Amino acid sequence: MRSHIVGKVELDRARLQQDLEALAAIPRVEEEYDEFSSGYWKNLSLWNSSGEADDTMYRDIQGAAKPTAHATKAPYLDELIRTVFDPKIVKMARARNLVDAMVIPHRDFIELDKDNDQYFRTFMVLEDNESAFHSDDDTVIHMHPGEIWYLDAAAPHSAVNFSSNSRQSLCVDFAFDGPFTEDQIFSEKSFYQPALKPDIVARKPFTDEHRNKLVRLGEVIDKDNFKDILFLMSRVHYRYDVPAAETYTWFIEACHLADDATLVARAEGVRDYMIGQRALGERLLAVA
Amino acid sequence: MRSHIVGKVELDRARLQQDLEALAAIPRVEEEYDEFSSGYWKNLSLWNSSGEADDTMYRDIQGAAKPTAHATKAPYLDELIRTVFDPKIVKMARARNLVDAMVIPHRDFIELDKDNDQYFRTFMVLEDNESAFHSDDDTVIHMHPGEIWYLDAAAPHSAVNFSSNSRQSLCVDFAFDGPFTEDQIFSEKSFYQPALKPDIVARKPFTDEHRNKLVRLGEVIDKDNFKDILFLMSRVHYRYDVPAAETYTWFIEACHLADDATLVARAEGVRDYMIGQRALGERLLAVA
Repeated sequence: MRSHIVGKVELDRARLQQDLEALAAIPRVEEEYDEFSSGYWKNLSLWNSSGEADDTMYRDIQGAAKPTAHATKAPYLDELIRTVFDPKIVKMARARNLVDAMVIPHRDFIELDKDNDQYFRTFMVLEDNESAFHSDDDTVIHMHPGEIWYLDAAAPHSAVNFSSNSRQSLCVDFAFDGPFTEDQIFSEKSFYQPALKPDIVARKPFTDEHRNKLVRLGEVIDKDNFKDILFLMSRVHYRYDVPAAETYTWFIEACHLADDATLVARAEGVRDYMIGQRALGERLLAVA
Repeated sequence: MRSHIVGKVELDRARLQQDLEALAAIPRVEEEYDEFSSGYWKNLSLWNSSGEADDTMYRDIQGAAKPTAHATKAPYLDELIRTVFDPKIVKMARARNLVDAMVIPHRDFIELDKDNDQYFRTFMVLEDNESAFHSDDDTVIHMHPGEIWYLDAAAPHSAVNFSSNSRQSLCVDFAFDGPFTEDQIFSEKSFYQPALKPDIVARKPFTDEHRNKLVRLGEVIDKDNFKDILFLMSRVHYRYDVPAAETYTWFIEACHLADDATLVARAEGVRDYMIGQRALGERLLAVA
């Protein structure tokens, strides 16, 4: 796992609570239809390239992003962005929520003006939620409020909230023109704490018997339930000790069991699109 | 099936197209979280009790509903409401969309000031969509643009759009204080055409072998994929000749097979909530 904690802040829970309530009251902006996410997603731009609240697009910009009207409603988060991070190099800051929702394992490739390694995405959950997890390759993480994570978008990764409780978060993006060190994202070096121990989720052993049962879903798979079964399989790695990317192996085997060449081709297409070596531009921006 | 066609209008496709594009451009209002719907739903109030565009609540009112700002953006639909129906007794009119989405089989009970039979809901799809269906008890319907349907909310019913193409519709609600005849909803008796033949979908035979495979999903069911499997099973009746309510029978049997008393109780709870004799007030308003 290349994702890791880069720092930690002690959150002022009372001030944070006011921001979270204000953000929860903002209606969700309609986003582009995404076949491969499920459940309730929310994505509010606090700082972006245009300063317009409804603009959710990441763009390469010179200098810093501008606060939007949403940042005014979340003064504590706005202050965190200005005082914890180096505000001169923040390229975007978003408040996100994820409720009873998942994005299936995928990799992100960013086709902008820089190499992928010049982008640095941080992510901090703002609420305790025992049912919300991230996965990165072969690891499942339970993030805690205040932990500032670097997210490696190039590895197969996924996020889930099994519950219908809120799990708001703050996602702050940086970009650099040349070599950089991680501590440069912070306003003061004291925020940089790379040695903090993450809460890695202990998972149950994944058995051959379990694997066989999953592949046997090929007995019922068809075009109508294709996505149900893909989502079902995508949740397995959160509870059982198996890499996220294995999801697609079982899925394709199940389609073979169904002896349906169209389904097999479609499943292989989903795998290649989500975790394969896609052409640049096929998938633009990260969903953390 | 008590749902049936009550009338038909010849739609002006060119004028309709302008309204559909205008409605598609209106951002979706955030709705209450609904655990048992999936996919993309949109619900725009054209006429309602307050005349406020963001008000999506059905209320018993004296007289007619008032047009909202959304009605101004859809002048053709507004004209249909005024000229096809009796505008003096329209209690609510909504433009709805359903994309890659389903509501699982359920019954609706309306706890307002009147008996359930005093409410009369009509529904008209506005776009051809070969992948969008309604089900009512033991029948699957493919509605065609211009057909005005009475929807019986008291029977187990469900709606689905298997595709990611739009399927906009117009839902017009009426309420009566005493006995009424169906033709009273129209401005002119000529719109009342109760003898039109509906497009009932021919489904494949549902076999014991198929049923056994569905129940065998109990081999993998757990709290994480409970909803995936419920949705998977809820789609079966659209393609195979079996009543919608059977979904819950297989689902509960699958939970028994998993030998998990918590899951069985939860599945029975879902069944009772969705199609059982619920206490009035547990579920207020219909999702067509």
